[in-house]
Amino acid sequence: MNYFMILYLLGWVMNIMSLCLALPVLVGLYFGEAEWKVYAIVMLVSLVIGVLLTIKKPKRNVFYAKDGFVTVALSWIGLSLIGALPFTLTGEIPFYLDAVFEAASGFTTTGASILTDVEALSQCSLFWRSFTHWIGGMGVLVFLLAIVPLAGGGSAMQLMKAESPGPSVGKLVPKVRYTAFILYAIYFAMTLIEIVLLLAGGMPFFDSVTTAFGTAGTGGFAIHNASIGFYNSYYLQGVVTVFMILFGVNFSVYYLLLLKKFGQAVKSEELRWYLGIISFSVLCITLNIYKASFGGKLFPAFHHAAFSVASIISTTGFATTDFNNWPQLSKLILVILMFIGASAGSTGGGIKVSRIILLVKSSLREISSVIHPRGVKIVKLDKKRIDHETLRGTTSFFVVCMLVFVISAFTVSLDGHDMTTSLTAVAATMNNIGPGLELVGPTGNYSSFSPLSKIVLIFDMLAGRLEYFPMLVLFSPTTWKGTLGAVKRRILWKKKTMRQKVK
Amino acid sequence: MNYFMILYLLGWVMNIMSLCLALPVLVGLYFGEAEWKVYAIVMLVSLVIGVLLTIKKPKRNVFYAKDGFVTVALSWIGLSLIGALPFTLTGEIPFYLDAVFEAASGFTTTGASILTDVEALSQCSLFWRSFTHWIGGMGVLVFLLAIVPLAGGGSAMQLMKAESPGPSVGKLVPKVRYTAFILYAIYFAMTLIEIVLLLAGGMPFFDSVTTAFGTAGTGGFAIHNASIGFYNSYYLQGVVTVFMILFGVNFSVYYLLLLKKFGQAVKSEELRWYLGIISFSVLCITLNIYKASFGGKLFPAFHHAAFSVASIISTTGFATTDFNNWPQLSKLILVILMFIGASAGSTGGGIKVSRIILLVKSSLREISSVIHPRGVKIVKLDKKRIDHETLRGTTSFFVVCMLVFVISAFTVSLDGHDMTTSLTAVAATMNNIGPGLELVGPTGNYSSFSPLSKIVLIFDMLAGRLEYFPMLVLFSPTTWKGTLGAVKRRILWKKKTMRQKVK
Repeated sequence: MNYFMILYLLGWVMNIMSLCLALPVLVGLYFGEAEWKVYAIVMLVSLVIGVLLTIKKPKRNVFYAKDGFVTVALSWIGLSLIGALPFTLTGEIPFYLDAVFEAASGFTTTGASILTDVEALSQCSLFWRSFTHWIGGMGVLVFLLAIVPLAGGGSAMQLMKAESPGPSVGKLVPKVRYTAFILYAIYFAMTLIEIVLLLAGGMPFFDSVTTAFGTAGTGGFAIHNASIGFYNSYYLQGVVTVFMILFGVNFSVYYLLLLKKFGQAVKSEELRWYLGIISFSVLCITLNIYKASFGGKLFPAFHHAAFSVASIISTTGFATTDFNNWPQLSKLILVILMFIGASAGSTGGGIKVSRIILLVKSSLREISSVIHPRGVKIVKLDKKRIDHETLRGTTSFFVVCMLVFVISAFTVSLDGHDMTTSLTAVAATMNNIGPGLELVGPTGNYSSFSPLSKIVLIFDMLAGRLEYFPMLVLFSPTTWKGTLGAVKRRILWKKKTMRQKVK
Repeated sequence: MNYFMILYLLGWVMNIMSLCLALPVLVGLYFGEAEWKVYAIVMLVSLVIGVLLTIKKPKRNVFYAKDGFVTVALSWIGLSLIGALPFTLTGEIPFYLDAVFEAASGFTTTGASILTDVEALSQCSLFWRSFTHWIGGMGVLVFLLAIVPLAGGGSAMQLMKAESPGPSVGKLVPKVRYTAFILYAIYFAMTLIEIVLLLAGGMPFFDSVTTAFGTAGTGGFAIHNASIGFYNSYYLQGVVTVFMILFGVNFSVYYLLLLKKFGQAVKSEELRWYLGIISFSVLCITLNIYKASFGGKLFPAFHHAAFSVASIISTTGFATTDFNNWPQLSKLILVILMFIGASAGSTGGGIKVSRIILLVKSSLREISSVIHPRGVKIVKLDKKRIDHETLRGTTSFFVVCMLVFVISAFTVSLDGHDMTTSLTAVAATMNNIGPGLELVGPTGNYSSFSPLSKIVLIFDMLAGRLEYFPMLVLFSPTTWKGTLGAVKRRILWKKKTMRQKVK
């Protein structure tokens, strides 16, 4: 492994982190809150670590997939640990593990909270909470790739692969750096449009910005206890619904739109399935709830069904109503959507629609190969042949996802909560959604879990955001097999060069 | 497709069916019950159909995997439809769909019942219910292969493959017929030993035989409402526990024992995992329930934990206690065991332990291939290399299993039962267990479901027993693409030969 390169990159992540922390400092100063000092201190700490690690660029830039995975996993753990500091230092979340849960939930765009009263937070902490969603949504290393020129060695592509969601990562343009830049430009522009539309509907500026951050990252932290239900306006909730769906679309579709390749954009198979699943779910839920929960009124039922479906499939987790009280069928649909998730290459989580398509298609191929044993079986997506490597990766992803689900559910069950709470808590964190059902439903929170469960759920949030492999590679003993030897060799080499210098 | 061969084989299945129906006739005559006449009539109907279809053996014996799958699927549907007739004709289960549910549940060794009072049935119907488990456990086509010489064309192996559970079907001896014979001999001998041991513990003869049938087929139908809890004896319940575990073991292990290859038998990786999972689950559940549900008494807690774990992992479904009242962790462990299931090549259902091993190993290989991209990655089981075909089949199986689960759960949820009931009802039928949790728990039954849900659950039982592909191939439109044309050609050919004869 290229330890120096990994540390160098981690340093850059810390630099970006300190840059990001400047915003809550400004917010604190603007609102005249004392908490700005805490944010300033953490900002400086982060900067010092970052500068120390990035003083010298390592000469050796050989960078394997393994290095990329380890870098990304460590970066996200680092972000969560440092991002949690302000919450504890301001005394707003006194228990540090809870603060890490909240920060990890923010960066991974989960939106699961251990807070019972969100409105008690200072403005700068509310801002920071929502802003972590925006940073985590598109990815901090993708941001790094966009602004810092990292010369060669394939490190850029490895980092992009490890951090971006989806069964296969395509570059929009040949250069990784420009791809990252284009992605962030689209992301920024769309966030801005949402802010403007929310402002137009009469939402206060601070609320518009934080809500847009939560939507863009498909995060789900809101600044009111009633989440988006606080804004009792069909227009505002409608805008959020539409943008939740939009941020769950593969960003390459928007790039195609920018290039005016409308035909190609609309033909995207994943986009069609994604919109199809949304339409079907909204229809089923509307029919299922309009009598039971909305006294026969069709439009409010449709409105809240659309909001909830958009919120869950895009893995955002905003709420306008407590879907925990809906009939069983609707709840089951939402649980299924939790696992399906958004599109690859979007800011959303979950298994991703394109993987579901590939899983269904490869199962059909298996059945078909029994019927026509001699026929050549090819799985296609967007009329392109999917190679065996990607297919195998997709089924492995699904199996790993289920294994993580089972093992996490087992551990979380030790707390003795009812089964629906335990299972949906795990589903909602590993798919980066936020709310589940029962105790962790839209009106509930994650405060009642034991520290062990919280650690498991933090792991699940990070593992889910990074699509399992980076976290599993990080915690795999074989990854660190040669490390002790490498450190020893390094010390010996240092001693030798020191001695030679003395001579 | 070889339609004539399929019909010929279906005829043989009907012949065997009528042979099987002779037993409840005798039971009815012995107990002096009027119901024997009904069984005799159904026996004759089955015989007439069978004889008509088997009068002439088709000349063409080309037989593909597809034909095997279709034959097996049709056979099992036929068994369920005809096996259900006596229940309705005796008036004991007036609604025919309910009777089909009960018969399918019997043959597939699920053990899920729509009866609220089992004890109200006649002795011959109780016997028939339990006997269907024994027939279905090892498979009716495997029985056919053992007793009827089917010449060549590979049909024997295709049928064996389609009906026997597990990721890959191995023959014990080169000839399929002898393999089938050996399997049935072991099956018969073990059932006999259980009957003797139960009799030794003071269980009445009728009870011993039916209980042994239920255990051997890993079915779960009992002749008392309290299931095995009726026999308030640690010895009797202990015997059933041990035999449930034994019938969940791959029968090839017993064959190795018969050949005195003890070392090879004990080294079976699947056996070790199977026993390891059982031990771990019993330990966890005992510790979890002995205070909460058994007032601190360790032995009864261990006894009932062992019984329930054995009952669920072997997919039998007998009960001694209502585990629905146990703490959440224990219930979750049981739900996980529902999906794991027994060993390949046993009479049990579920995903099968060997598939779980392959899934875990291939996931580890994927992680390892990130860390060492150039290393050759091979998945081994029992020190033998598993080929790509089998691995792909295993992951497809898992994906198909999850898809069937999701679609079934969606349909069953339309009934509006609580989520645990809906989800565990589907899990308990598709994995051929029987009892789930809540309404379908050990003291509940499946009577409250709508006809649509019952049809879905019948499909799940059959699909689960035959490991999905035969049922999916049967209902796949492409399977029947050429059928209409073939029938037309046949009619034209008949007309032509008739005309030629006239000339």
